[in-house]
Amino acid sequence: MRYLALIAAMLTLPAQAQPTATGDLGLVIERATGSVLLIDQSDRAALARIDGLGDLSHASLVYSPDQRFAYVFGRDGGLTKLDIVTRQIAGRVVQSGNAIGGAISDDGQLVAVSNYDPGGVRVFDAETLEMVADIPTGGKTIGLVDAPGRRFVFTIWDSGETWIADFSGTAPEITKIPDMGRNPYDALITANGRTYITGLFGEDGLTALDLWSDDPQPIRVLPGYGRGQQEMPVYKMPHLEGWADAGSEFVLPAVGHHEVLWIDARTLKETARTQTHGQPVFAMARPDGRHVWVNFAHPLNDTIQVIDTLSKQVIHEFKPGPAVLHMEFTPRGHEVWISVRDANKVMVYDTQSFEKLREIDAESPSGIFFTARAHKTGL
Amino acid sequence: MRYLALIAAMLTLPAQAQPTATGDLGLVIERATGSVLLIDQSDRAALARIDGLGDLSHASLVYSPDQRFAYVFGRDGGLTKLDIVTRQIAGRVVQSGNAIGGAISDDGQLVAVSNYDPGGVRVFDAETLEMVADIPTGGKTIGLVDAPGRRFVFTIWDSGETWIADFSGTAPEITKIPDMGRNPYDALITANGRTYITGLFGEDGLTALDLWSDDPQPIRVLPGYGRGQQEMPVYKMPHLEGWADAGSEFVLPAVGHHEVLWIDARTLKETARTQTHGQPVFAMARPDGRHVWVNFAHPLNDTIQVIDTLSKQVIHEFKPGPAVLHMEFTPRGHEVWISVRDANKVMVYDTQSFEKLREIDAESPSGIFFTARAHKTGL
Repeated sequence: MRYLALIAAMLTLPAQAQPTATGDLGLVIERATGSVLLIDQSDRAALARIDGLGDLSHASLVYSPDQRFAYVFGRDGGLTKLDIVTRQIAGRVVQSGNAIGGAISDDGQLVAVSNYDPGGVRVFDAETLEMVADIPTGGKTIGLVDAPGRRFVFTIWDSGETWIADFSGTAPEITKIPDMGRNPYDALITANGRTYITGLFGEDGLTALDLWSDDPQPIRVLPGYGRGQQEMPVYKMPHLEGWADAGSEFVLPAVGHHEVLWIDARTLKETARTQTHGQPVFAMARPDGRHVWVNFAHPLNDTIQVIDTLSKQVIHEFKPGPAVLHMEFTPRGHEVWISVRDANKVMVYDTQSFEKLREIDAESPSGIFFTARAHKTGL
Repeated sequence: MRYLALIAAMLTLPAQAQPTATGDLGLVIERATGSVLLIDQSDRAALARIDGLGDLSHASLVYSPDQRFAYVFGRDGGLTKLDIVTRQIAGRVVQSGNAIGGAISDDGQLVAVSNYDPGGVRVFDAETLEMVADIPTGGKTIGLVDAPGRRFVFTIWDSGETWIADFSGTAPEITKIPDMGRNPYDALITANGRTYITGLFGEDGLTALDLWSDDPQPIRVLPGYGRGQQEMPVYKMPHLEGWADAGSEFVLPAVGHHEVLWIDARTLKETARTQTHGQPVFAMARPDGRHVWVNFAHPLNDTIQVIDTLSKQVIHEFKPGPAVLHMEFTPRGHEVWISVRDANKVMVYDTQSFEKLREIDAESPSGIFFTARAHKTGL
């Protein structure tokens, strides 16, 4: 009987002893070691390290709607399903030779991965990781995002086409939009899922699509702006995921220039430029849109600048340390977590006072992903 | 040894057997019975009922950042802290005689309640429910919302003042803005936390504040519009929480008219009106902003209309059943949950096909609150 009482006590314990509410958790990619660090926003702490995820250089991840599972997209084509409640790998497939990110459908049932080699998109059952669709595109496939209505949108570097794959019916329906421009290298979708925008490497400017249109056509954006005459390797191109929706404007890290661009969210016309410390990599709006935080390309990547949305002036500048790779705001914006790769630290700052609140050890940290992303389109 | 093995097995079980990831959960207010129903979006199911919350007519709730705890604001002044992992009441205080909603600070540490009697705002430690501030206002206090920077904003029916309480320092700092208009009855804050808007009962129109301003001043909105010459009881006033941000416009349920109003989000000027089936109560934008779902006041409250944002036309109308009280979209908008009070059902619909997917039994359901609200300002 004693044993039974003990067992009964233990059965009621775990929820108390190890609460697993997942709303304020997150994962940090440790790029050098193929591991991820499970973090807790509220406690400003690392909870656990999970190993065995393969090549995590340039890795990203998405979350299931219940914020229990993460799907990690490795550069080596590995797709790993992590259970952040049990802190274990729940499944893993190596689905291609070279991948470049992924997305999860709005209903959480499909996980899509975009691949360089073989070029295309593969779609997996989020529960089992069984492949449910293979969409070869004939080229390197980039800028894969989810869109409302169980759709994925992605773009082909080689052909300059954007494809919309609609999985709302029994078989996927593909719509192809040609003439998006020469060598699109990355893309984003706005938070409402309406506008898809590709950055171009082969020519100046960007190209937008209005996904609310019955027949979306390419819309040229900033046609006189881009890499210009400079020759730059692709890996220095700024991340378009970093586009910031700052109220009525977007903020765009300029390509090859020490500035960010402000673009009217309705007209997609340029409204202003702000000179910056270096070539911006990410320009991230604080969730309320009042400030934009910018980090920079090597060798100026020890610095962050904060720009005020109203004045468009730099109001704060500081040096967290060597190789600032990524920033992630808490969902309501009161704090920001920053990866400082070569310091092997993640640093937590108050976004109002700019005070440093905590340093957390991490192995070559890069991307930081809070579980709140589960509830957003295009992240 | 057998027992130890059994115990060891059980210790690893619960996380598997009873996953408590909380990202896709929610609570439904059961107004007649003082209970709430814990629901699961992904399973489209009710998981548990929690009783003993007092008078839940016109109740609302907010979530902790980890999406583990809900703070339920009852009409009788009861503030109940629910643990949705253990499915138990974690704390309860009756903090006034008559309350009308609450909010949680952006850092999740403070819970504020606005009271009719005695009129004012009381602020509690989210962990312990100990009162940390008592802010008497001398009148019925309405439209309490959180704002970035550990602030709360609220408005006094009697004096027509809006107060901003800043808790970022050691002692709360109060800023009072007079002349918001006669008898403000409800208010909202925009999703980015910048614009606070009150509806007026004592005169036509609404009043806005730009919280990004160093010295916010009342801005009159739609001064020629409101209840007009009609005498209407307060309980028929539309909910301003239902304001929908549909891309570049807000949608406002008209007061005492069978129509919704479209307002430019930048200028706050009226851009269009759409005639509706009845007097709207909530006009809720699907998270992507493409559709607006509208329910109506008694006796036309068995119907929902869906309006397309581009055409501003009603594109779908249906009758879920008697007394449609509330709607809540899944965070990425693929489904919507609807309370049909007098059918004692919550109904789940696909937002693309409008197909009914599930009916769930509930006792006189009213407000539906998904945990994703934890990550949003003003909800």
